[in-house]
Amino acid sequence: MAKAKLKKVRVIPLGGLGEIGKNITAIEYGDNIIVIDCGLGFPNDDMLGIDLVVPDVTYLQNNLQKVKAIFLTHGHEDHIGALPYVLQKLPVPVYGTKLTLGILLNKFEEHTFETVPELNCVNAGDKIKAGVFEVEFIHVNHSIADSLCLAIKTPVGVIVHSGDFKIDPTPVEGEMTDLTRLGELGRAGVKLLMCESTNVEREGYTHSERRVGESLERYFEEHKDKRIIISTFSSNVHRVQQVIDIAAKYGRKVAVTGRSMINVIGATVELDYMKVPEGTLIDIGDIKKYPPQKLVIVSTGSQGEPMSALYRMAYNMHDKVEIGHEDVVIISASAIPGNEKLVGNIINELYRKGVTVLSDSTAEVHVSGHACREELKIFHALTKPEFFMPVHGEARHLHIHKELAEQMGMEPCNIFVGEIGKVLEIDAKGARFAGTVPAGIVLVDGYGVGDVGNVVLRDRKILSSDGIITIVTVIDRTYDEIITGPEVISRGFVYAKESEALIDNIKTIARDTINICFDRGNDWNQMKFRIKDEVAKYVNQQTKRKPMIVPIIMEIE
Amino acid sequence: MAKAKLKKVRVIPLGGLGEIGKNITAIEYGDNIIVIDCGLGFPNDDMLGIDLVVPDVTYLQNNLQKVKAIFLTHGHEDHIGALPYVLQKLPVPVYGTKLTLGILLNKFEEHTFETVPELNCVNAGDKIKAGVFEVEFIHVNHSIADSLCLAIKTPVGVIVHSGDFKIDPTPVEGEMTDLTRLGELGRAGVKLLMCESTNVEREGYTHSERRVGESLERYFEEHKDKRIIISTFSSNVHRVQQVIDIAAKYGRKVAVTGRSMINVIGATVELDYMKVPEGTLIDIGDIKKYPPQKLVIVSTGSQGEPMSALYRMAYNMHDKVEIGHEDVVIISASAIPGNEKLVGNIINELYRKGVTVLSDSTAEVHVSGHACREELKIFHALTKPEFFMPVHGEARHLHIHKELAEQMGMEPCNIFVGEIGKVLEIDAKGARFAGTVPAGIVLVDGYGVGDVGNVVLRDRKILSSDGIITIVTVIDRTYDEIITGPEVISRGFVYAKESEALIDNIKTIARDTINICFDRGNDWNQMKFRIKDEVAKYVNQQTKRKPMIVPIIMEIE
Repeated sequence: MAKAKLKKVRVIPLGGLGEIGKNITAIEYGDNIIVIDCGLGFPNDDMLGIDLVVPDVTYLQNNLQKVKAIFLTHGHEDHIGALPYVLQKLPVPVYGTKLTLGILLNKFEEHTFETVPELNCVNAGDKIKAGVFEVEFIHVNHSIADSLCLAIKTPVGVIVHSGDFKIDPTPVEGEMTDLTRLGELGRAGVKLLMCESTNVEREGYTHSERRVGESLERYFEEHKDKRIIISTFSSNVHRVQQVIDIAAKYGRKVAVTGRSMINVIGATVELDYMKVPEGTLIDIGDIKKYPPQKLVIVSTGSQGEPMSALYRMAYNMHDKVEIGHEDVVIISASAIPGNEKLVGNIINELYRKGVTVLSDSTAEVHVSGHACREELKIFHALTKPEFFMPVHGEARHLHIHKELAEQMGMEPCNIFVGEIGKVLEIDAKGARFAGTVPAGIVLVDGYGVGDVGNVVLRDRKILSSDGIITIVTVIDRTYDEIITGPEVISRGFVYAKESEALIDNIKTIARDTINICFDRGNDWNQMKFRIKDEVAKYVNQQTKRKPMIVPIIMEIE
Repeated sequence: MAKAKLKKVRVIPLGGLGEIGKNITAIEYGDNIIVIDCGLGFPNDDMLGIDLVVPDVTYLQNNLQKVKAIFLTHGHEDHIGALPYVLQKLPVPVYGTKLTLGILLNKFEEHTFETVPELNCVNAGDKIKAGVFEVEFIHVNHSIADSLCLAIKTPVGVIVHSGDFKIDPTPVEGEMTDLTRLGELGRAGVKLLMCESTNVEREGYTHSERRVGESLERYFEEHKDKRIIISTFSSNVHRVQQVIDIAAKYGRKVAVTGRSMINVIGATVELDYMKVPEGTLIDIGDIKKYPPQKLVIVSTGSQGEPMSALYRMAYNMHDKVEIGHEDVVIISASAIPGNEKLVGNIINELYRKGVTVLSDSTAEVHVSGHACREELKIFHALTKPEFFMPVHGEARHLHIHKELAEQMGMEPCNIFVGEIGKVLEIDAKGARFAGTVPAGIVLVDGYGVGDVGNVVLRDRKILSSDGIITIVTVIDRTYDEIITGPEVISRGFVYAKESEALIDNIKTIARDTINICFDRGNDWNQMKFRIKDEVAKYVNQQTKRKPMIVPIIMEIE
């Protein structure tokens, strides 16, 4: 029995918000656990006031001595962003490429650690032993440089984890995704494929990053007399590289605005991931020294983020850049689901100012970093896995990816659509789901990690939609009489000055209720409950609103 | 001078949320005002707790005796939904088609009026005199039946207001948009065109409504062994008609769920806008009497609305329908901007339950009700306006529509991109913007129309993100001493039981601050200010959060 148990590999998607198998995944065999990625999520609309969402790593903490290492596929927030939090609890070695670790180090500056994190730089082609596992790094194309797919040799066979990828035969820098190595692995036998599913709903192929460069050149050609402002993801090194190259070609200077853009360009130039022609970069404070048609401004804010550089420019709040009909703004990104309105608002504001706007929807100034259906099929066809677990997607993406694999001939019983915390067990006899482990998300609000739970969120929800009415009364319990009050203080309910009658009536109701409670000999709790009940009834009947009602009774003797 | 003044027609987009010239427009000449549409908006994310947004009609109220009538283009919420509110203040005659008025009457049932609204039924082809104006109604295709474009004869020339439209050469019922009449008007001379801009970013043509029917038939054919659930807008009469017809053809019964769907189908059948083959409709309570493959369920919830029929089905909360892998759910609608996540969540939940989902993104089960670029061009080419005002769109749509008109040869100086409340003045000499009038939006929260303003919204915003801390202290001012308290009550901040130390420290800070204030002889206001300040500082430093802090001092003698 004990022997059989040792022969099982367990694959566990541990955290993630909406998407499964994206932020963090654990692979376990006996006393060995390795972790793939450690990213964060951005709060949903109903997580009021929450800043970040990090994975719940209770299971890993409970098995701390087993955890050998964390392997990072690439440097995006949703793959590395939770490390500053998780490494506090899980001080294990981290492996990643130079750029990934460079971005990570930038992040670490805002945090303090008891144990200095052990960061190990790897390259595509390297193999690292971690306990019973051997992890091989395979080069893939993605919207950030230095991205990896992982091939993990385990005692039951090889697990391939795609990471985030696309197949770009003409990348701006470096090679195409290493299809050859994937094919070799497939020929030798892949036990389990974990493949990302982001674009599984999109037919065909994702365009090459080079396509963006071609569009940009066209617009540089077309708008020779105007200043060009380009907003994109700071982490998209190749995109920014193309902008700089084209700017240099057209004799324009490049100024950079937005904190993360300045940081990332600084870091990538230092790490030699970006090459800036001598004299091309200028300080944003110096743009007045050049005519508009000799300038390109590279900016953050492509997701419409409030107070980002592009936002500040659009709303006249940028201290260095004023924009108007002399400008062309190129938004070289597409809105992440949920950000559509923010981006739309900025575009509207730019149009109002007479700016020429080129964005994803009309111009071809962005390509995705993720594989579309035909590329996914190539990945499947090369790796020829025995078992398949679609990952990195919402439920619908995973199910559609399952259908894609079935269309390619896989048996439905060999495909496993996972859930956070659900264990996929693989041994010589096959694969199956086998129980769950503690997993999920932890909410970060300010310095608080995990201290905001459902009660607090529910209260914030009520407060946000109808506000709060506090009713304070000082009573003398000895003589059962009201000493002072009730006072009524409301916030977020109605503007009190315009609703004096309503507030007066609430006072009367509270006073009457307290006196009735005195007569009936009700205790403190009953009194509060009754005040709440009576006032809520009255307020709802008068206003059709349901503010939070908080009666406070102060007793004196 | 006075004479010259009389000869001006003034066109004023009065209300609307984000979009210009959509919800309501006034046209004025001397002592004559007519109003086009009277719709409502749905609150933005930052309008916390707000239920609806209605136009600010102050300008019309101030000129009540001039207002001759309100003309409705069609029965969608954003064109008629504010009438129950506005007619209270503006009891003038309303003109609309039979279906538009039918939907309106349904709405009126929830409201009471001092003056019974005067509703006048019109047909395409009719002309109605209203003061100095004559309004002609022209048939157009749209996603709701019985839609109109308006041609308004004014003393300075004809104004054409497109309403919402598309050009559907093969509509499910009735005729194509009346291009002939538009052409005649153009030939006779159109002074101003006001044309909708919703799809101006989309190339080509919007597909015919019939295309949806073809797709639906294909899926009925493909899923003969399953129950089919179709969710769409209740107001899309032709869509629902097609579903019923196809169901009847395939020998399936149709059950309806969702309040608005039941209401609208009831009303449209009664008004003879929908024809249901004998014996096709069954009660939703009777679905158990039929095998799944003999059933179609028509449902609300295509926008993912919480507690809509589709939502309740997806989350196992529907009392009559349980769904699973025996079901095909067709979402025959596209998500309105801002609703993408709500719709996505439902689709995920359906996939988790094993349901087959067909939605806009993958299947062809929806077409837009609005004209794409080629159709807009036809509208321009037929009406050949002297002046053009793009309407019904966010700023970017209006500007892109302006560019489209310029590409068709219009002079930029003859195109007017308006703003809410900005007056376009037209006379024999030309057209120009001339001043503004009070206009904008009024927020509706429960029964309150306009009583929630910026202060309340700002408070709700703070409450929603960090909650509230109330600090109550009873003091004796005569002896400058604390009688009882400070008590600290928080909501939406942290779960108090887990933060006892923090709460205790807040109490201490408040107590110390009050005692210092006693020593310094500070008054009541200074005391509150200082408590707030000290506690805020401490809380922010400890938690990096900024809850609302409300100190309450109760004085006794």
